[in-house]
Amino acid sequence: MTGKLTLIGCGPGAADLLTLRAMQRIKTADLILYDRLVDPEVLSFASPDSALEYVGKGCGDGGRQQVDINARISEALSQGLTVARLKSGDPMVFGRSSEELAIAVSGDAEIEIVPGVTSALAAASEWSIPITERAELQSFVVTTGKSSRDGKDPDWCSVVRPGVCAAFYMSVAQSWRIQTALMAKGVPGSLQCDWIENAGKPDVRHVSSRLDHLAMDAREHAVKNPAILLIRYPMSAAIADTGQASELA
Amino acid sequence: MTGKLTLIGCGPGAADLLTLRAMQRIKTADLILYDRLVDPEVLSFASPDSALEYVGKGCGDGGRQQVDINARISEALSQGLTVARLKSGDPMVFGRSSEELAIAVSGDAEIEIVPGVTSALAAASEWSIPITERAELQSFVVTTGKSSRDGKDPDWCSVVRPGVCAAFYMSVAQSWRIQTALMAKGVPGSLQCDWIENAGKPDVRHVSSRLDHLAMDAREHAVKNPAILLIRYPMSAAIADTGQASELA
Repeated sequence: MTGKLTLIGCGPGAADLLTLRAMQRIKTADLILYDRLVDPEVLSFASPDSALEYVGKGCGDGGRQQVDINARISEALSQGLTVARLKSGDPMVFGRSSEELAIAVSGDAEIEIVPGVTSALAAASEWSIPITERAELQSFVVTTGKSSRDGKDPDWCSVVRPGVCAAFYMSVAQSWRIQTALMAKGVPGSLQCDWIENAGKPDVRHVSSRLDHLAMDAREHAVKNPAILLIRYPMSAAIADTGQASELA
Repeated sequence: MTGKLTLIGCGPGAADLLTLRAMQRIKTADLILYDRLVDPEVLSFASPDSALEYVGKGCGDGGRQQVDINARISEALSQGLTVARLKSGDPMVFGRSSEELAIAVSGDAEIEIVPGVTSALAAASEWSIPITERAELQSFVVTTGKSSRDGKDPDWCSVVRPGVCAAFYMSVAQSWRIQTALMAKGVPGSLQCDWIENAGKPDVRHVSSRLDHLAMDAREHAVKNPAILLIRYPMSAAIADTGQASELA
């Protein structure tokens, strides 16, 4: 293989959240592979000479589609093409990039990864929600609400801890389980929670909630993916809640 | 106040990792406040009519400088200026943005936050280090190695857990404490660790290490801030290490 594979982070949706580097790589690609989360305006940066191919996944057929995408990348690289694989957000955050990179690496093709603005940060900026704060929030976690190893729920209490702001990607369906699992372990029901649907896009929507109303609010406001759920657990909330004192040890 | 404050994430250093939106806002600002981590090339996007002011912090005088920055923002907003406050990386990730936003909010000035590429994601992209991986790494954490509440070290074992990739910002000085605290709690010494110095800049440097050599490697290779430390703790590493079985419960 003498081609080049560039994985490009296109940001959360708005075309102007593309980086200059991403725009330049899109302009010079021979083949552009994109899926349904990439803004159509981003594709307008492509050269008229380049081929654009939609490789979006429908719901539930992700495995099959990925096999097809991998085959297309492999074929194009062996023809010596420069392939731009557009990813929403950042390619390294839940982008399933490892499989696509492995194809290029195994064929000795050149690779490049262009980082992008990940959706959680766009969501936080859009609504001025601090995700780190001196003395209150020392860590920021991005996670999915899913565990793929054994089908069991992840240990959400290990993620949502005092001093942490957690961003859950694509977790609308898990809201009831997240709420009940956390509250069962004594996480205060008063914690501020925010749903941000379509972060970075013109039809962005913000639903403000709290942990003990999380699932109800998601249902009542019909929150849909792609959505980011931000849960903030400031140190002072843990201190105020005496039941949480042991967590601070 | 009739001005506007725009906090702009300028990405990790390379000017071409600026977003199109950031570039547009820089072009139209009356006053641009920047510090030492912002690439000089970014400033070249400014209009010839706009004023550029350096508000960088020296080591150890961060508190004093922040007071001065706050005062300058307040003054400019009350003059009705459009103020672009340039931040390296993303403004919401360890950017101390809350204080600056509070000034604008209290004066009823308009605010906007432009998200950016945070350094950890640029570091991971630059060296093709996966930070999420199906069944192996479900969460990604950004944190500093510091606790500002009481001077005590944070509970690093709550951050570096099976299934997590952790990115420590500005933590070179903490490498010995991070290494020993994690290993004392049974985290495998064989975990892959990577230092990325000056992520996104021409003088970027990568030092590959493992947990049980972390401090030694940082010293031997003279790793300096700004540096990102990535520690990956895949599920399979925890399973392989029988001493970690309890962590998976």
